[in-house]
Amino acid sequence: MKIIKGNVTTPKGFKAVGNFVGLKKEKKDLTLILSENLCTAAGCFTQNIVKAAPVLWDIERVKTKENKIKGIVVNSGNANACTGITGLRDAEATAEVFAELAGCDKENVLVCSTGVIGVNLPMEKLLNGIKTTYPLLSNSFESGESAAEAIMTTDTFIKTICVEIELSGKKVTIGGMAKGSGMINPNMATMLCFITTDADISKKMLDKALSECVKDTFNMICVDGDTSTNDTVLILASGLAENDPITEENADYDTFKEALFEINKNLAVNCVKDGEGATKLMEVTASGIKTKDDARKLVNSVVSSNLFKAALFGADANWGRVLCAMGYSGAKFDPNLVTIVFRSKAGEILLMDKGSPIVFDENKAADILKESDIYIDINLKEGTETATAWGCDLTYDYVKINGDYRS
Amino acid sequence: MKIIKGNVTTPKGFKAVGNFVGLKKEKKDLTLILSENLCTAAGCFTQNIVKAAPVLWDIERVKTKENKIKGIVVNSGNANACTGITGLRDAEATAEVFAELAGCDKENVLVCSTGVIGVNLPMEKLLNGIKTTYPLLSNSFESGESAAEAIMTTDTFIKTICVEIELSGKKVTIGGMAKGSGMINPNMATMLCFITTDADISKKMLDKALSECVKDTFNMICVDGDTSTNDTVLILASGLAENDPITEENADYDTFKEALFEINKNLAVNCVKDGEGATKLMEVTASGIKTKDDARKLVNSVVSSNLFKAALFGADANWGRVLCAMGYSGAKFDPNLVTIVFRSKAGEILLMDKGSPIVFDENKAADILKESDIYIDINLKEGTETATAWGCDLTYDYVKINGDYRS
Repeated sequence: MKIIKGNVTTPKGFKAVGNFVGLKKEKKDLTLILSENLCTAAGCFTQNIVKAAPVLWDIERVKTKENKIKGIVVNSGNANACTGITGLRDAEATAEVFAELAGCDKENVLVCSTGVIGVNLPMEKLLNGIKTTYPLLSNSFESGESAAEAIMTTDTFIKTICVEIELSGKKVTIGGMAKGSGMINPNMATMLCFITTDADISKKMLDKALSECVKDTFNMICVDGDTSTNDTVLILASGLAENDPITEENADYDTFKEALFEINKNLAVNCVKDGEGATKLMEVTASGIKTKDDARKLVNSVVSSNLFKAALFGADANWGRVLCAMGYSGAKFDPNLVTIVFRSKAGEILLMDKGSPIVFDENKAADILKESDIYIDINLKEGTETATAWGCDLTYDYVKINGDYRS
Repeated sequence: MKIIKGNVTTPKGFKAVGNFVGLKKEKKDLTLILSENLCTAAGCFTQNIVKAAPVLWDIERVKTKENKIKGIVVNSGNANACTGITGLRDAEATAEVFAELAGCDKENVLVCSTGVIGVNLPMEKLLNGIKTTYPLLSNSFESGESAAEAIMTTDTFIKTICVEIELSGKKVTIGGMAKGSGMINPNMATMLCFITTDADISKKMLDKALSECVKDTFNMICVDGDTSTNDTVLILASGLAENDPITEENADYDTFKEALFEINKNLAVNCVKDGEGATKLMEVTASGIKTKDDARKLVNSVVSSNLFKAALFGADANWGRVLCAMGYSGAKFDPNLVTIVFRSKAGEILLMDKGSPIVFDENKAADILKESDIYIDINLKEGTETATAWGCDLTYDYVKINGDYRS
């Protein structure tokens, strides 16, 4: 596996573009992705009971056994969520206009939205925007980057990645892009992620690979504990790499899944790094846990704790808040077996050893916590399972950004 | 039921005092409560799996059928949580010293702590402090207020209340005090609450009344989503009012429970009002819900949403975040039936009507949200159950307070 310069336009058969069409005040707000041929597609969606109209549209299109997807329309600036019947019609109309341009059926088009909730889409601007943007579609690197830019909301940097692997002697490429950066919680996030690949892979195996990768990446990140109405991860596979089709769990599947995991992890961690107002990234790993489920609960609870997130912002080695968050996580464990270590590139420090607090050097701890990437290692020695979650600190700027998001 | 000037020293038979003994830098940090005779006691405790040493001590003492409690020792500045075997011994030694002074057994003494986690108690200061503070115990109003002051941590005001009722022709008094104000989440809070009463009531009925009242008061408040290791609500009943003993669910029990509910609600809401950094109180009520459990989930999810809490701080009528939080609450409902109203003393405004967003006057909404007490009414028309939860806004000061709590 090799990380290469690239994005969603790098795999064979894909064009994309980002453009400004007037949905936001001045920033790019419309992204189109187009595939040369009909693609196999898989998707993971928000678990929020209140699902935005485009999510409902996509779920129906992606769940069919033989979906054949030609392209994706993404707008930022408006989530088309909590918009009633009108919202559903708007999602459909969006797919229709793109389908006409692409010469396919509306059923072959997926739609995503992100932005403010509860306001109907300005359809004239959006539909005209699709028409004027369509001719700009290109497979250039720059065009792929502009596509990643136009899906951003409060994000501060573009998130793209591309990986190259070899399957049955053929070069296969996977490219991805994502946006964060608030309303991010375990079990997806206000998060959109689009992945393209030229791999030839069956619908069944693509579903399996994506859902397994998402479980330990996008479902393990937290910015603020709010699970959004619009979370979506989509992957389109064009098959143009001409590898032997992957139809079962073989070595090629493993190689593909490993690369897909890398893409997902990279984009998920970057969403947290770019968390609203965040100044620090924390990677929390629990090991020696009885069950995988408990391991996930423990680390998700720690990265979600407002108290610990605020302590991280203040570079305060308040490990008691880590233990406290573990305690209310719902996981079962013996508090007397807990070991906690804080690490960063400035060193590491043992704070609790088998349930007993360790007297530690506050200055050394402060030095460690002043770094931007902090690792929290939890060990229970009660089993063999591990899990990792990613989160960020809680800062003044988070409050500022979300105090007047709509204005 | 009559609310009167008073606190925990008002019911017959109780003395209390708060004092500074050197656990904190300069503020009062030790509270003693003493009853003339052995009391019937009931308690509710944190559901965190990591329970502080004093919580473990109290649970054992309170759960026995015929507990007879003589007094309570409370220190602030140190939570005696995550302190291993030493912590357990320290809690016991604290009870012992108080028991010697009060002429009772250590089994008759309850112990509570609040403050920083993971640091052993400075026992010499604490035990000497108990000895020098004991002679100061008094049944005066002022002494009861000082007791309420000495249990505070980041609280900014004293929380006390007293209620008078009549049971079988006798005047009965219930007094209470509590402290918040961070690490507060549904299912108790970093919250200590002490209630005294001169009512004559059996252990069984006292347990029942307290647990039912806590369920809809202290278990329905949220400041930051963190459930603490030390949460405790204790009630002592001296029986000195000489009412006919309450031993079953009769009219006297109902009167007593109604008054106890008022005490609990008042103190719980004041804990939220005094939430760390809070500038606004929100009272969220869901009605027309299928089950009581779902109603509780819905309102707890809304008061816990960081995004909505930040919007409240910014006086932004972001009702989409209310619906979003309902959506990930775990409650089952039809989003197309939701009605949402925001109210305050400046007026009220309908934002969503049976699932459809309503165009509203932003200026009027801003005026409503500028008030300090905000009411959010959610209606589903799917059933007859209701629930109310209380929360506060998320502010710069919350981050500031918790960024360097230990220093």
